[in-house]
Amino acid sequence: MFDEELDLEELLDLAEKKQYLKLKERLVDLNEVDIALFIEELDSEKTVVVFRMLPKELATDVFACLPVEKQQHIINSITDRELNFIMDDLFVDDAVDMLEELPATIVKRVLQNASPDTRKLINQFLKYPENSAGSIMTAEYVGLKKRMTVEQAFAYIRKHGVDKETIYTCYVMDDKRHLEGVVTVKDLLMNPYETVIGEIMDTRVIKAVTTEDREEVVDTFNKYDLLSLPVVDQEDRLVGIITVDDAVDVMEQEATEDFEKMAAMLPSERPYLKTSVLQLAKNRILWLLILMLSSTITGSILAEYEAAFAAVPLLVTFIPMLMSTGGNSGSQSSTMIIRGMSVGEIEPSDILKVIWKEVRVGVICGLCLAVVNYVRLIIIYPGREMICLTVVLSIFLSLSSRKPSAVRCRSGPRS
Amino acid sequence: MFDEELDLEELLDLAEKKQYLKLKERLVDLNEVDIALFIEELDSEKTVVVFRMLPKELATDVFACLPVEKQQHIINSITDRELNFIMDDLFVDDAVDMLEELPATIVKRVLQNASPDTRKLINQFLKYPENSAGSIMTAEYVGLKKRMTVEQAFAYIRKHGVDKETIYTCYVMDDKRHLEGVVTVKDLLMNPYETVIGEIMDTRVIKAVTTEDREEVVDTFNKYDLLSLPVVDQEDRLVGIITVDDAVDVMEQEATEDFEKMAAMLPSERPYLKTSVLQLAKNRILWLLILMLSSTITGSILAEYEAAFAAVPLLVTFIPMLMSTGGNSGSQSSTMIIRGMSVGEIEPSDILKVIWKEVRVGVICGLCLAVVNYVRLIIIYPGREMICLTVVLSIFLSLSSRKPSAVRCRSGPRS
Repeated sequence: MFDEELDLEELLDLAEKKQYLKLKERLVDLNEVDIALFIEELDSEKTVVVFRMLPKELATDVFACLPVEKQQHIINSITDRELNFIMDDLFVDDAVDMLEELPATIVKRVLQNASPDTRKLINQFLKYPENSAGSIMTAEYVGLKKRMTVEQAFAYIRKHGVDKETIYTCYVMDDKRHLEGVVTVKDLLMNPYETVIGEIMDTRVIKAVTTEDREEVVDTFNKYDLLSLPVVDQEDRLVGIITVDDAVDVMEQEATEDFEKMAAMLPSERPYLKTSVLQLAKNRILWLLILMLSSTITGSILAEYEAAFAAVPLLVTFIPMLMSTGGNSGSQSSTMIIRGMSVGEIEPSDILKVIWKEVRVGVICGLCLAVVNYVRLIIIYPGREMICLTVVLSIFLSLSSRKPSAVRCRSGPRS
Repeated sequence: MFDEELDLEELLDLAEKKQYLKLKERLVDLNEVDIALFIEELDSEKTVVVFRMLPKELATDVFACLPVEKQQHIINSITDRELNFIMDDLFVDDAVDMLEELPATIVKRVLQNASPDTRKLINQFLKYPENSAGSIMTAEYVGLKKRMTVEQAFAYIRKHGVDKETIYTCYVMDDKRHLEGVVTVKDLLMNPYETVIGEIMDTRVIKAVTTEDREEVVDTFNKYDLLSLPVVDQEDRLVGIITVDDAVDVMEQEATEDFEKMAAMLPSERPYLKTSVLQLAKNRILWLLILMLSSTITGSILAEYEAAFAAVPLLVTFIPMLMSTGGNSGSQSSTMIIRGMSVGEIEPSDILKVIWKEVRVGVICGLCLAVVNYVRLIIIYPGREMICLTVVLSIFLSLSSRKPSAVRCRSGPRS
């Protein structure tokens, strides 16, 4: 690992002092991700200066790593020719990700400055529904024919591979672009030059359909430990591939969404620090309101027992403990089950097994907590056995009955 | 995607009817992951029969995908020679994963049946601390010398690459195994045969140290979109590599652990359905007890106001709503912040920014909920403005003050 902190300080210092020659020397030695992190820290004027000093190919790689605000600023500051180069050099998936976030007027200028082929491709990719396999795929893959020899395949890769997002898995198609098999560069290397691709390709292709949910795509990646996955349309024609780095991003986003849902929030699209206070509040208020209103039901049940509370005011002091213990236990169950479902360990058909398991876990937890509490209460309130018994019985019942109810709700914030 | 359900039923049927020839024909056409899923469904006798019918190399691949109980059963049922083949063919990381779970007597037999080199490597890898980079790496990488030409490198890969976990990134070392650079197969393909590796290798190597935490490893993978990461010891000598599929597994496990911690549970090592009821209960009881006892503090505060509850019993009915709203809002904040930290969006140095943001979000949420509630209460309890005001003031205060406290706790289950 680099010592980033140090690097960044030094680079910012060079930019501050306008020692651009020295800065350029340092930058071209860095990884595009680190250059992008550096550019994020610059003010808008220096952003363009620094971006322009990068060699063309590297500039596009860095551009793809920048947040959309910086991309927009750069687009607004460069010439049509520079923009044209970037658009044709960007991978389609990165271009589509950016265009989905940009204002319409800028999208128009961007598309006007892409070559007709790129424009057509981007327009096609922009149409795939959000969260579908089509929305995360890219078009830069190596396509081979099964009549080719290994030698021809290598020649093709040498000629066209430089612009592909991955060259390590190649896709074999017939003349109608139907996917017939896959062959890895490892297979090519392990076989003699005269071997025909059709003989060594793997016809058991694991693939996705453009309309498939991206969560399913991630599951497929995890199950088979893939580096890339071909995506076909409804007629089984190859239209793109998804690479493992994009699958990993989706995995992370989906996990974040699950965290947000479990904590009773609407999912947010942007990183926490970049989301406005109003947006954060908006994401939270709806569920807070719903849960607040539902907890008033508990309140109105309590209202039925006003006489009991008036007679034995001590009972009131047990409400927090009973409520929070029941709630905590329910959220433990629902968390385990939701997480199990999202990583594919629990299938909907397991519901009876899960309920039976949770009932037993609930009884054990309920018994333990009841015993501990009885001992505690009888020490604090000697001679009031009946009240103590009532309280621990409530604990036991709330733990052993709340579990199955937690099983039934797909997303179960405590109420 | 395969139609798995169909496959599985049919295969089980063939195994049931002992049509082993036909079964074998079907199996060798499948992916190792799917064969392993099929074997998981078989009884212990058939497991060994089916495992033995697989071609040797495929058998090891399938073996690596099986759960440890099945692995143990197979080890106990095969000959020393068969075991020797499997152990020398397994990737070191898979062997280590398995050995960490097996009983000591079986570990002894397994190690006795590995070749001395493999045994030495496994013993070395078993010593890396849990959750370190060393514990998830493997030893099967392609190592090159910088004096080699591209042609020599290809010859080396053709000869030795078949047993490597990845061949696409090759590591260039000096005679003392110090890492000097990396070169990808893509670089090799894009350059003429006579080019010397030293000229085209990338010397800006992103690497991990064996003792580094595996969470940091995952962050590095995500940041740079890597396919593999070299791991060096304290003397900067290359000892292994981590591949992206293992990094993805760690990512998933870490996210699951975060889910469990947030729901106040001890992390579990095994999938939900395979964890015993007692173990599940044990993981949950400790935190339930701690949280239960802490909520009795709230109860004893309430006890101070027994007189107020006796005078206005209606107040009791607002306890559930106030408690749950405060708790929900706190868990929203802590979830956002913990998740932000674990995906690297929030750094500890952002603490002031986060507190300031949460204070504002809390004030907005508190205002909204207070207003809605005031309207609701004044309709239900006309003429009791003071009580309504007291309740909504409590809501506002609990929402706007609970936020910063949620920020301070790293893992904040509601209490």
